[in-house]
Amino acid sequence: MDNSYSQVVAQPKIRWLINKTSEDWINLAISNPKEILLDHAHCERKAAGVALQLMFRYVSEPGLSEVLSPLAREELEHFERVLSILNARGHKLQKLASPPYGSILAKNICKDEPRRMLDSFLVAGLIEARSHERMRLLSVHSPDVELRNLYADLLKSEARHFGIYWKLADERFDRNTITTRLEALARVESDALLEMHPEARMHS
Amino acid sequence: MDNSYSQVVAQPKIRWLINKTSEDWINLAISNPKEILLDHAHCERKAAGVALQLMFRYVSEPGLSEVLSPLAREELEHFERVLSILNARGHKLQKLASPPYGSILAKNICKDEPRRMLDSFLVAGLIEARSHERMRLLSVHSPDVELRNLYADLLKSEARHFGIYWKLADERFDRNTITTRLEALARVESDALLEMHPEARMHS
Repeated sequence: MDNSYSQVVAQPKIRWLINKTSEDWINLAISNPKEILLDHAHCERKAAGVALQLMFRYVSEPGLSEVLSPLAREELEHFERVLSILNARGHKLQKLASPPYGSILAKNICKDEPRRMLDSFLVAGLIEARSHERMRLLSVHSPDVELRNLYADLLKSEARHFGIYWKLADERFDRNTITTRLEALARVESDALLEMHPEARMHS
Repeated sequence: MDNSYSQVVAQPKIRWLINKTSEDWINLAISNPKEILLDHAHCERKAAGVALQLMFRYVSEPGLSEVLSPLAREELEHFERVLSILNARGHKLQKLASPPYGSILAKNICKDEPRRMLDSFLVAGLIEARSHERMRLLSVHSPDVELRNLYADLLKSEARHFGIYWKLADERFDRNTITTRLEALARVESDALLEMHPEARMHS
C-alpha cells in the first residue's frame, strides 16, 4: 500500500459540517435498522464508485490513483462487511430510492476544470464527514450491539477518508480557494438535510 | 471474505480461447515493456470498473456482489502493484489509446436481458482468460526478472477470475445456452486479435 494512503493525514481544524445531525434523524435511524443497513451498503458501494470514477476522469493526475485505489478497496471491504450482516439477517441487497442529498450536492459541483476537480474532492469529503458523524451517533445510540460494533469499527476509516479528500485538494489548490469553496459547499450540504427526508437513510 | 469467492472454482474443461497468441505479439510486448506495463495498469483498473459496473447494474441479483466486490478489490490491488513499478521506474500513469479489442467485444454483447447478463459474464471471462494467457507468456519470455515475477504472481489470480465469471454464468443459465454463446463470443475474441494492433498493448 502506498505510504501516502496509510499515513495519518494532518489537516487544519476544518469545519466540514455546519449543522449537527438532529435527534429526529437518530430516532428515525435506530427505529429502522434494516433500511439503514441496506442504505449503508449502497453508500459504501457508491463511495467506491466515486473513487474509481475520479481515477478514470483524472487518469494522468500524479499521486491521485495512488490514494484513491486503496480508498476504493477499503469502501468495498466495508460494503462486504455490511452485506454479510444483511445476509446473516436474511435481508437481501435490493434497490432503495435515494434521498435527494447526493443529487443536490452533485448539482453544485462546478462543470469547468480545474474547479470541477476541487469541488469533487470537497463534495466527496463532505459526504464522508457526514457519514462519519452519523456512524458515530449510531455506534453510541443503536440498541443493537452488533450494529454498534459495526459502526464503531467503520468510523475509524471514514475519518481517514475525508482527510484523504482534504489532502488531495490541499496538494493542488491554494488554501483560500479551498476554504471559500468548502464553506459554500458545506452550506449546501447542511441545508440539504434541514428538511429531513421521511424515509430512513444514512443521509435523510 | 465470502467463501464463494475464495473457494476453488470447479469448471468443466472450457476452451475460452480459440486461437493462441502469436509469437509476433510476444516479440512486440517484450520489446515495449513500458507500454505493456502502462496498458496493464489500465487493464486492471478497467477490470475493477467492469466488476463494479455489474454490481451497480444487477444490484438486486443474489450472490453477485458477494463475488464481484472481492474481485474488484483484487484488480485494484494488482493495479496498485503495477503502478508502484511504474512509479519506481520513473514512468507516469498516462492515457494510452486503446486497441480495438475491448470495443469489438462490447459491441457483441446482446442489448436485451437476460442475455445481456450472460454475455457480460462471458466477455469479462474471455478478457480475463486472454490476459491470463498473455501474462503467462510474459512470465516466461520477458527478459526483465522483475516483470517475469510480476506476471507469474498475478496470473494465479487471473485464472481464478475467469473461473468466477464462469460460475456466475453457470449458476444462472443452462449449460447449452452458455456453451453456444461462449463459442460465438470466443470466435469474436480470437478474430479481434487476428490482425495484430501495431501498438504494444496487452490485447494488441
